[in-house]
Amino acid sequence: MSDVRLSQIIEELGGELLGSGELRVSRIGPLEGADASTLSFLAHARYQSQLQSTGAGCVIVAPAFREAAAARGAAIVTPDPYLYFARLTQWWAARTRPARPAGRHPTAVVSELARIGDGVRIEAHAVVEEGAVLGDGVTVGAHGFIGAGVVVGAGTRLAPRVSLMPGTRLGERCVLHSGVVIGADGFGFAPNEGRWEKIEQLGGVSIGNDVEIGANSCVDRGALDDTVIEDGVKLDNLVQIAHNVHIGAHTAMAGCVGVAGSARIGRHCTVGGGAGILGHLTIADHVHISSMSLVTRSLLQPGLYSGVFPIDENAAWEKNAATLRQLHKLRERVRALEKKTTP
Amino acid sequence: MSDVRLSQIIEELGGELLGSGELRVSRIGPLEGADASTLSFLAHARYQSQLQSTGAGCVIVAPAFREAAAARGAAIVTPDPYLYFARLTQWWAARTRPARPAGRHPTAVVSELARIGDGVRIEAHAVVEEGAVLGDGVTVGAHGFIGAGVVVGAGTRLAPRVSLMPGTRLGERCVLHSGVVIGADGFGFAPNEGRWEKIEQLGGVSIGNDVEIGANSCVDRGALDDTVIEDGVKLDNLVQIAHNVHIGAHTAMAGCVGVAGSARIGRHCTVGGGAGILGHLTIADHVHISSMSLVTRSLLQPGLYSGVFPIDENAAWEKNAATLRQLHKLRERVRALEKKTTP
Amino acid sequence: MSDVRLSQIIEELGGELLGSGELRVSRIGPLEGADASTLSFLAHARYQSQLQSTGAGCVIVAPAFREAAAARGAAIVTPDPYLYFARLTQWWAARTRPARPAGRHPTAVVSELARIGDGVRIEAHAVVEEGAVLGDGVTVGAHGFIGAGVVVGAGTRLAPRVSLMPGTRLGERCVLHSGVVIGADGFGFAPNEGRWEKIEQLGGVSIGNDVEIGANSCVDRGALDDTVIEDGVKLDNLVQIAHNVHIGAHTAMAGCVGVAGSARIGRHCTVGGGAGILGHLTIADHVHISSMSLVTRSLLQPGLYSGVFPIDENAAWEKNAATLRQLHKLRERVRALEKKTTP
Repeated sequence: MSDVRLSQIIEELGGELLGSGELRVSRIGPLEGADASTLSFLAHARYQSQLQSTGAGCVIVAPAFREAAAARGAAIVTPDPYLYFARLTQWWAARTRPARPAGRHPTAVVSELARIGDGVRIEAHAVVEEGAVLGDGVTVGAHGFIGAGVVVGAGTRLAPRVSLMPGTRLGERCVLHSGVVIGADGFGFAPNEGRWEKIEQLGGVSIGNDVEIGANSCVDRGALDDTVIEDGVKLDNLVQIAHNVHIGAHTAMAGCVGVAGSARIGRHCTVGGGAGILGHLTIADHVHISSMSLVTRSLLQPGLYSGVFPIDENAAWEKNAATLRQLHKLRERVRALEKKTTP
Repeated sequence: MSDVRLSQIIEELGGELLGSGELRVSRIGPLEGADASTLSFLAHARYQSQLQSTGAGCVIVAPAFREAAAARGAAIVTPDPYLYFARLTQWWAARTRPARPAGRHPTAVVSELARIGDGVRIEAHAVVEEGAVLGDGVTVGAHGFIGAGVVVGAGTRLAPRVSLMPGTRLGERCVLHSGVVIGADGFGFAPNEGRWEKIEQLGGVSIGNDVEIGANSCVDRGALDDTVIEDGVKLDNLVQIAHNVHIGAHTAMAGCVGVAGSARIGRHCTVGGGAGILGHLTIADHVHISSMSLVTRSLLQPGLYSGVFPIDENAAWEKNAATLRQLHKLRERVRALEKKTTP
Repeated sequence: MSDVRLSQIIEELGGELLGSGELRVSRIGPLEGADASTLSFLAHARYQSQLQSTGAGCVIVAPAFREAAAARGAAIVTPDPYLYFARLTQWWAARTRPARPAGRHPTAVVSELARIGDGVRIEAHAVVEEGAVLGDGVTVGAHGFIGAGVVVGAGTRLAPRVSLMPGTRLGERCVLHSGVVIGADGFGFAPNEGRWEKIEQLGGVSIGNDVEIGANSCVDRGALDDTVIEDGVKLDNLVQIAHNVHIGAHTAMAGCVGVAGSARIGRHCTVGGGAGILGHLTIADHVHISSMSLVTRSLLQPGLYSGVFPIDENAAWEKNAATLRQLHKLRERVRALEKKTTP
């Protein structure tokens, strides 16, 4: 992780440099706590005050902050500093993380009936079953399980310990983190005299390109048709996607979200951590759901939706919660008063 | 997955056939989007309108829809179409999924002190420790971990990457999906001058027959006695069952449910996704809990219980939530008004 | 698990014995259901009535219950019976669980560039990459993955199937249960014309001493700086800790808790099961959060905080929830009434 000259960064990522291209930085860091070797960024105007106090060697700023930045030292001016920062991290990671060569670890168990592309890396103790197809440049992490007939698109990277059950099709350039399970059975049972009769899940899972799925998240196979996740979807850790859910492109869900069966979620939505979406609902494009809210009805208009009991000191909460249980009666009492006071 | 004649299905699963037994179907699918090669089903009267519009080659219906179904083409008449459908999926899966032979993969590490039944399949890289007992026909998926002394009943199927820690006893014909952890330590600590002193968890986990547990779900070992899951219980993905919980037979819990320590849950209950049950509570048989509700007291009567803030457009939610924090005062104001207006 | 004399226990753990040291017990168990071979304990005064009815051979009690305990049989008197019980379980577990010898299973894949301390146990199919450092007495369970450069402190025990991604540093005497993932990428993306641009996560995870993390829980690596978990923190199962969270020493979180990015949580806090904490908030020391409450603002004073809709019979809930959606209007109606009735 040797340091780099600012001119190198500009060469790679563009932007307008204020100050000397010979200046060197050795880390990327937040404005607060930055020193002369740190390259930092001002993502939001609300952190503007930190621009004066930071010790960062160079700061990435929007054109509106050109003067303020120049007054304090080196800067990179770019229309969207946060996006520039994102690309900088990508370049930085590629530069500093050791390249991992293609090849098959001798302990990996790879079926002769699997089709393995060029430049594929299969790590220790991974299992690739018959009929699986791994596109060019795929990485299967240690202890990965790639079931029979599974298709993994080119450039997709599976962290250690990912399970792709038979019936899974993954697109290109996806990233799946450790502990992810794709294609386990959906939760389907028919009631039968007080017992549950299993509905075998005959569908699969179809995942688009550029999808990222966080650690220990699950996407179940469909009952009859496929569960579908479109291009560019991002799921955080410990997310549960039930059978036959359909998630539109570029939707993002934070940690611990649960989506019940056959829900149909639009494109460009965001779902806050711990939120839930009931089964068979439809969510329009550009819907945003607050953390830990439960969606109990279809949301057909874009917008921000919330539903969570406000947190309070416990004593206050207890009083309000107790009153809430009588809320309907309270409304009736107000009605009675209204009648009484109306001549 | 070659096609089948309807007469074959009737032979296997019963039901009354309307139309020709020579008709062939090659897939099972929902009414919507079905074509002439699709066998579909009408599970609820509310989908009745789809019966006329579907292109399905054959539809499974209840006797009440015999005429309507016959008017449009082939049909199978049976008292409970959804149950028939469930059994059809089972037969279909058995027919179309390649049989996986018994045997032990050479990379599996199986203790000589384990007792392995007939027809057991142990997949690649699995570990079976000393004293473990695998009944006849058990499958241990790839990367499975079967701890010392664990007992797995006949016909139970463990997907790849399941951990059964020492002290676990599983019944017959269970299905555990990828990433399940049974028998990790319960969360027990005694406070000691601001620190936590570990309470070693000396109990185990006892799971009955025909239990299914979803991907990445956890059932902790008991502190002193066992955590108990009775016959026919179905747990979805990412469910957390704490130490010494007792779940009655044929209870089902949807994804992301959490049950705290020593809760005692009855038989034939259902728990909606993301719901929580506090510790040491008692839940009667036939209790149904809505998604994301928190059970804070014992529920001793059967019935449906709910407790979740209704979702709304964020602006409306904000106003109502702010008022909610003053709800107790609002009640007092109503009381004052009542006093004032009472002569 | 042969039985032990009470005098042995007193010798090991202290306490004052009432009755004969020759009395033998063979199990530890709750007061209810205990028999003459059971050593039990009275942890809370509220279980006092069970002291008379229990059949336990010996009961651990506080000094206040000395007489009542002596009147019924053998007892161990100690200032904090629950803490005594915790230590008893530790001694009991050490005595009854078979010691697992140090050594490296032949199927483990251990880099020659890893540094392995004395008395380390590496179980079957584990993977230890280059530059990893395992302190003395560490256990890496079966199928464990220890990424390049990861540091694991002395005496730390990893259950089977734990992933420590590169950039993770674990302290001494930690316990990580099966399925834990430390150091997966935090959930960071910059919006870019309706798509998400990945922010590579360049930070790591720093975990102190005596930390315990439950099954299938996740702690993400930091975006730029580290995610930090201080000494003595206890996390239950299926907990999600996002990037750059900081958890103060001796804080405990129950199952299914989710903490969003950059939240800063104090020392000696407790968080109930399923609760959520939004990003960038500050929580003071000694804050206690009720189960399934969502923390939406910083909590700078110690105390107990709650926010959850009270559960009720569904019919009652429906009425109250419907009224709640009109709560703001209800308040306005009360205001109008107040105006009207004020001369």
